[in-house]
Amino acid sequence: MKKKVLYSCLALALGTGAGYATSVLAQAKPDVLVKQRQSAMVLIGKYFGPLGAMAAGKAPYNAEVAMRNAGYLGALSQMPWDGFHANTKDEKSRALPAIYDDAAKFKEAQDRFTGAVAKLASAKDEGAFKAAAGEVGKSCGACHNDFRAK
Amino acid sequence: MKKKVLYSCLALALGTGAGYATSVLAQAKPDVLVKQRQSAMVLIGKYFGPLGAMAAGKAPYNAEVAMRNAGYLGALSQMPWDGFHANTKDEKSRALPAIYDDAAKFKEAQDRFTGAVAKLASAKDEGAFKAAAGEVGKSCGACHNDFRAK
Repeated sequence: MKKKVLYSCLALALGTGAGYATSVLAQAKPDVLVKQRQSAMVLIGKYFGPLGAMAAGKAPYNAEVAMRNAGYLGALSQMPWDGFHANTKDEKSRALPAIYDDAAKFKEAQDRFTGAVAKLASAKDEGAFKAAAGEVGKSCGACHNDFRAK
Repeated sequence: MKKKVLYSCLALALGTGAGYATSVLAQAKPDVLVKQRQSAMVLIGKYFGPLGAMAAGKAPYNAEVAMRNAGYLGALSQMPWDGFHANTKDEKSRALPAIYDDAAKFKEAQDRFTGAVAKLASAKDEGAFKAAAGEVGKSCGACHNDFRAK
């Protein structure tokens, strides 16, 4: 019974019972990979949005929200990248071919972003936070400019 | 220029320029909230899937993956709940009215899940990990049974 519930949950979490074996125990299907990486981007937007607004002076600085969101972003910033597998090339998305054609530059753009997020999480005061958030924002924009369709 | 890039990034991250002000500086729109909470569920599936498979003996136990994913799930398990705002009631999704009609029970189901994930992250060995993963799986299933349409 315990196992049955567990399996049922896994299948639900993954969307379909049939998708379970291929999604979990082997390479995920291209459409699943795209959905997962887009989900990470949605949540990065959710939790960076308020911080960008604070950094730009559009919202009051709130240390508690800043720290919580920076922590979440530390995890989220790691999550999109394995979704850009070569087997997703033909899936409908805004990902540009440059992702696969210039993998080194794409990795550099990822590292700039994850590095900036790490600095955000370790910012000790409002000034350091705002500087770090500005750099996170620039790293988002730079990567989108080069690797995402308008 | 710095500000311009930052804003541009925020707008991109949030999907539309027009959505920026309402999404970040005030209550997010219902469709955005649904997308965000569904994104969290997709990623919970991504990172719990392999752990459930390990717990069920369908994949070999890998302590490194278990620890990494448990850490990610610690953050992700916090993310869906503010997306179940009353203003999303009329959005198309599998969320059942019971979420709003029995908020206390829904909160209890959330707490069971986040508590189980916390235990997963602190599991010290394979046995503790498998027990904790089983309980996470059951908490997913229980909540989906009560609050999500088949």
